[in-house]
Amino acid sequence: MRDSRAGRRLTMKKLSIICFSGDFDKAVAAFTLASGSAAVNYEVNLFFTFWGLNLLKNRKGRSFSGKGPAARAFGYLQGGLKNVPMGRLNFAGASPKIMRRLMRKRNVATLEELIEASKALQVSFYACEMSMNILGLAKEDFDPCVKEVIGVSKFLEISEGGETLFI
Amino acid sequence: MRDSRAGRRLTMKKLSIICFSGDFDKAVAAFTLASGSAAVNYEVNLFFTFWGLNLLKNRKGRSFSGKGPAARAFGYLQGGLKNVPMGRLNFAGASPKIMRRLMRKRNVATLEELIEASKALQVSFYACEMSMNILGLAKEDFDPCVKEVIGVSKFLEISEGGETLFI
Amino acid sequence: MRDSRAGRRLTMKKLSIICFSGDFDKAVAAFTLASGSAAVNYEVNLFFTFWGLNLLKNRKGRSFSGKGPAARAFGYLQGGLKNVPMGRLNFAGASPKIMRRLMRKRNVATLEELIEASKALQVSFYACEMSMNILGLAKEDFDPCVKEVIGVSKFLEISEGGETLFI
Repeated sequence: MRDSRAGRRLTMKKLSIICFSGDFDKAVAAFTLASGSAAVNYEVNLFFTFWGLNLLKNRKGRSFSGKGPAARAFGYLQGGLKNVPMGRLNFAGASPKIMRRLMRKRNVATLEELIEASKALQVSFYACEMSMNILGLAKEDFDPCVKEVIGVSKFLEISEGGETLFI
Repeated sequence: MRDSRAGRRLTMKKLSIICFSGDFDKAVAAFTLASGSAAVNYEVNLFFTFWGLNLLKNRKGRSFSGKGPAARAFGYLQGGLKNVPMGRLNFAGASPKIMRRLMRKRNVATLEELIEASKALQVSFYACEMSMNILGLAKEDFDPCVKEVIGVSKFLEISEGGETLFI
Repeated sequence: MRDSRAGRRLTMKKLSIICFSGDFDKAVAAFTLASGSAAVNYEVNLFFTFWGLNLLKNRKGRSFSGKGPAARAFGYLQGGLKNVPMGRLNFAGASPKIMRRLMRKRNVATLEELIEASKALQVSFYACEMSMNILGLAKEDFDPCVKEVIGVSKFLEISEGGETLFI
């Protein structure tokens, strides 16, 4: 997608998403947009920050990741991809399970499949340096799909000239 | 607004909002932006997905809409426009009521009025195909203002070249 | 940043954020983006609306600000900058305190410092006329950094041609 001959038109066809929320429902929205845009040849950049980082942790369940007791407690309480809650009507985690079942039943891609599709379609995954610093997390704590750990100014450069969403 | 002679400037004057949240407060924000932008001649596209679909259901109260028991339970629990909760300090639904009263008292357009204004100002309403599929909802379950049921790629086409917000 | 000679490129380097949420975590995200963008010469406009207004109230703690009993109750319950909750895992306000401590420990700018940095870097602060009207708040209730009280159409003018996020 990064074409040296890229004219104005091509440059505009870029979507960047700041994945701030680690909620199940918002993650489905973010990865549906990401994979759907990549499928029609958009350059897609995902920038994971704060709660969003949970979606990409190597450990998919609860674990004491992070440095220092407070960070580790947050890490455990947040858990990983398997623990992400619904933003509403979560019912102690029952809802994401029901939703996953509904998605399979309706033949709609599940969250896990949407993430895999995004990787396959060359979506770029970035992790937020500052959040990782606060939570005491290192690059090794994340899925290898994370290409780079970056800060705000680098993200601005990457997303410039395209559409950016905060989810 | 879709002018065949549309130059670059005109093309930029477009606002698209992904209405993901069904919260009362965020819905007020989305429809204030939608009607306010349409009033100053923006092309405005609203794409309703997930919880946001509740705002446009034909049945304004709680009802077992949807296909299959899990979808119907979700449908009931979410309710319609009359049941949308505040994102914070909801107090079991008392807050949206108080807020509606405050808005009337201050002579500010209520949520219902903002929706009507948006319709009158030719805002385009789209519903998300995938969410409707998951929740077992059909076009008939929605207000006739919903122009079309579309997916991500169609939305990208519609929103391209303008400003897009995720609310 | 508003340069009369500003060409297309310069015009694009603008970031506007609709600060709707008054959550601690989202406020950190908004002000990190704001100060980070301003630091690399972006024109940055912050538009505070609804819960977001709490971040800029003169009174940093809980107080009965606003006009009329309902508005005053909301004002008290929301509090000011010191009371902003986490969007998740808030634990009755313990989390923002722990998070503040973590940020200091890791040498990351705290929310208060991010706000001060944004002011120092000439970020423009706007408050939403309609929300203030609903909540019975006046310009005097806010930090003097609030440059102007504006509505949607003015915000559209200010943000046009740049990137806009809803947080």
